[in-house]
Amino acid sequence: MNIDMIRAAAQRLEGHARRTPLLSSPFLDEIAGKPVFVKAECLQHTGSFKFRGGWAALSALPEPLRKKGVIAFSSGNHAQGVAYAAALHGVLAVIIMPADAPRLKIANTRALGAEVVLYDRTNEDRDAIGAQLAQERSLTLIKPYDEPEVIAGQGTTGLEIASQALDAGVSEADVLVCCGGGGLTSGIALALAADAPNFTVRPCEPEGFDDVKRSLETGSIQRNAALSGSLCDAIITAQPGDLTFPIMSQLCGAGIAVSEEEALKAMALAFQRLKIVVEPGGAVGLAAALFHADKTDAPALIAVTTGGNVDADIFAQALQTLT
Amino acid sequence: MNIDMIRAAAQRLEGHARRTPLLSSPFLDEIAGKPVFVKAECLQHTGSFKFRGGWAALSALPEPLRKKGVIAFSSGNHAQGVAYAAALHGVLAVIIMPADAPRLKIANTRALGAEVVLYDRTNEDRDAIGAQLAQERSLTLIKPYDEPEVIAGQGTTGLEIASQALDAGVSEADVLVCCGGGGLTSGIALALAADAPNFTVRPCEPEGFDDVKRSLETGSIQRNAALSGSLCDAIITAQPGDLTFPIMSQLCGAGIAVSEEEALKAMALAFQRLKIVVEPGGAVGLAAALFHADKTDAPALIAVTTGGNVDADIFAQALQTLT
Repeated sequence: MNIDMIRAAAQRLEGHARRTPLLSSPFLDEIAGKPVFVKAECLQHTGSFKFRGGWAALSALPEPLRKKGVIAFSSGNHAQGVAYAAALHGVLAVIIMPADAPRLKIANTRALGAEVVLYDRTNEDRDAIGAQLAQERSLTLIKPYDEPEVIAGQGTTGLEIASQALDAGVSEADVLVCCGGGGLTSGIALALAADAPNFTVRPCEPEGFDDVKRSLETGSIQRNAALSGSLCDAIITAQPGDLTFPIMSQLCGAGIAVSEEEALKAMALAFQRLKIVVEPGGAVGLAAALFHADKTDAPALIAVTTGGNVDADIFAQALQTLT
Repeated sequence: MNIDMIRAAAQRLEGHARRTPLLSSPFLDEIAGKPVFVKAECLQHTGSFKFRGGWAALSALPEPLRKKGVIAFSSGNHAQGVAYAAALHGVLAVIIMPADAPRLKIANTRALGAEVVLYDRTNEDRDAIGAQLAQERSLTLIKPYDEPEVIAGQGTTGLEIASQALDAGVSEADVLVCCGGGGLTSGIALALAADAPNFTVRPCEPEGFDDVKRSLETGSIQRNAALSGSLCDAIITAQPGDLTFPIMSQLCGAGIAVSEEEALKAMALAFQRLKIVVEPGGAVGLAAALFHADKTDAPALIAVTTGGNVDADIFAQALQTLT
């Protein structure tokens, strides 16, 4: 994994992935007590940054392999990103999804042309299911984060942050990234190490599912006690990846954990002040910026709102936190 | 009014107004039956395109005049746009708002540093109130639409649409613009006549408040029977402007009227498929694209979602239209 792979991915994504805007509001600055910028990846194709990794991985495959199709397992956003990237490449995507994923994500993935295979998140091993299907049908497995081309694709977000922050006059900042397996976090960290070395990436997670935070603290990979039961389902993984953890360990600052209530409040403020739709797992970084600014000494904060695929009932629940 | 004023305004707005993204979703294309693009002006500073006109007018004032401050009357979005543009210029803004404007808009305008004066929309004449205050306090009145520099500022949206549509491979389209007094509509029409002559602007309004549509049909300025009672309050004006109507009459195609229910459905689909927050009046153009595509022969549709300043309860009402 290196910066050249990220720059190469950026070239392949040019004209296909969106350069999402860097937003801000004086009202959010006031809450945090310092300037807050929001990299709105929820505005990416399929509603999350995962389209970048999906496109990067698909476009990196040799043509004969790509034509046979791909397979991915995902709680939803990776599924949609890979499905749409495959559809645009004109190839088959088989997606293995947990049966308890949000209805909208399952429906969207099917509507994007993918074949969806559901599994039981608590009793079945998605890796084993994926490996078996891949072998039987000659599909290439696109892992959600522990895969160099996927990390490179997500890292293109970091190249854009470096450039957009410069335009906004920001020369030093903490970059607060919603973190599951660490693909986006490690990709952005690599990009910023090259293009904005005064920026520090801080992985952000829901309380009770802070495996990355604890892994960084202890210096070795820690697991989550549970894998379900959070509104922030999109960023719940068992543990940081074997590829992503060493990168995060070398380049990232300390992790930050936020409560579900804080994530819901951040969603409501993003609605009210930025006019963007953010899902609970995608609001964790913004929640850290708004409600945990005391945990950073940086003069400015850049939060990545990583996804916006949220059902209407949960969004309405978030809006009720507005007084 | 001419294209040179719009290009000059674009130069003054550079680095201050956001270049909002042109979004799309295969799900929206399917509903309309043809490609739909969305110019997301709800992501502009202060949540609507009005910041452009506010900045353009303020930055065009001679320094001695600007320093004395400005005054504006508005149902809300123009107020916020002028207030924030004034705050960024370091000058006073006095804003005259109807007492029944959405709570959020009044609160936001005050929080942006403006002095707010409320009036009764049905019994008082806002023009007279504005003129009197302007004279008493030596403030420059910035009209919401019938003002050349404001039209020029809003028209910068059209320059961006022309450029972004070209990047997206669109060479012929109808551009569906939510229309109140016609400042944005006429500005975009002037910009596109210069930069994308194969694009036709279609003013979009709520049913029962379609003064521009009827004015274009009859060739003379028509008034609305009522000035309140619509969820789309942001784009309800008495009649098209004296400056904007001749421009629209010369350059625009026929108007399109949509129901409130269609506007709410468009808000819900923008939430679900684009991850943006749109207010009822700002969703009228998208509603026309999605539910009145039969009224246009153009091979592609570009809808401008003009604002996102909506209270949570009305947004929740829109989400309930999702099945």
